[in-house]
Amino acid sequence: MRITRLENCEVLPVHMAGAIGATKQVPIGKADGAPNFSIRVFTLAPGGQTPHHTHESEHLNYILQGCGEVMDGDTPKAVGAGDYLLVAPHQKHQYRNTGDGPLVFMCMVPTAYE
Amino acid sequence: MRITRLENCEVLPVHMAGAIGATKQVPIGKADGAPNFSIRVFTLAPGGQTPHHTHESEHLNYILQGCGEVMDGDTPKAVGAGDYLLVAPHQKHQYRNTGDGPLVFMCMVPTAYE
Repeated sequence: MRITRLENCEVLPVHMAGAIGATKQVPIGKADGAPNFSIRVFTLAPGGQTPHHTHESEHLNYILQGCGEVMDGDTPKAVGAGDYLLVAPHQKHQYRNTGDGPLVFMCMVPTAYE
Repeated sequence: MRITRLENCEVLPVHMAGAIGATKQVPIGKADGAPNFSIRVFTLAPGGQTPHHTHESEHLNYILQGCGEVMDGDTPKAVGAGDYLLVAPHQKHQYRNTGDGPLVFMCMVPTAYE
């Protein structure tokens, strides 16, 4: 059984095209023996964003801290701490931090896309 | 894209043998079109517990609120808000609320075991 906390997880910069002010941590993933799904945590600085993109894997998201917008296709929707989201496979999406503090969210994906 | 909050999700009692003071919510699941994994949220009242059991599906857990113990096999380990856990397939486990308030945790599983 692996038990950890975010502060114990390496903070990795996100270098994907379209990403701004984003870092990634992986509290539960392939390296821990997760057989199907991984938990990633992204932190966006104020003004930061993830790429506005599509891919074949779904996202299961939970917003831990902060507020911002998620692009549902090309439509912005307000999100904040406590929101749960399902981004379906091939659905265009993007997270944007429109707040004054960090926007921190969990993003569960199949381990192949960790 | 589904966006919801815990307060919008039906609260279901947990009737499994060995469960005490436990309820379940499913903010993201099969009914929402989740293709592989579901997010369930369990709430244990003070003194409550989940069954001390094993099964073939793994758990990815995140503790949202409260404190308690997780049984790693037959060994209790202290857990609290902010902890991430991986319960491997076939690993004996149990959550126990040893605190004064609710113990609330996310439990991601393959949709087949939702």
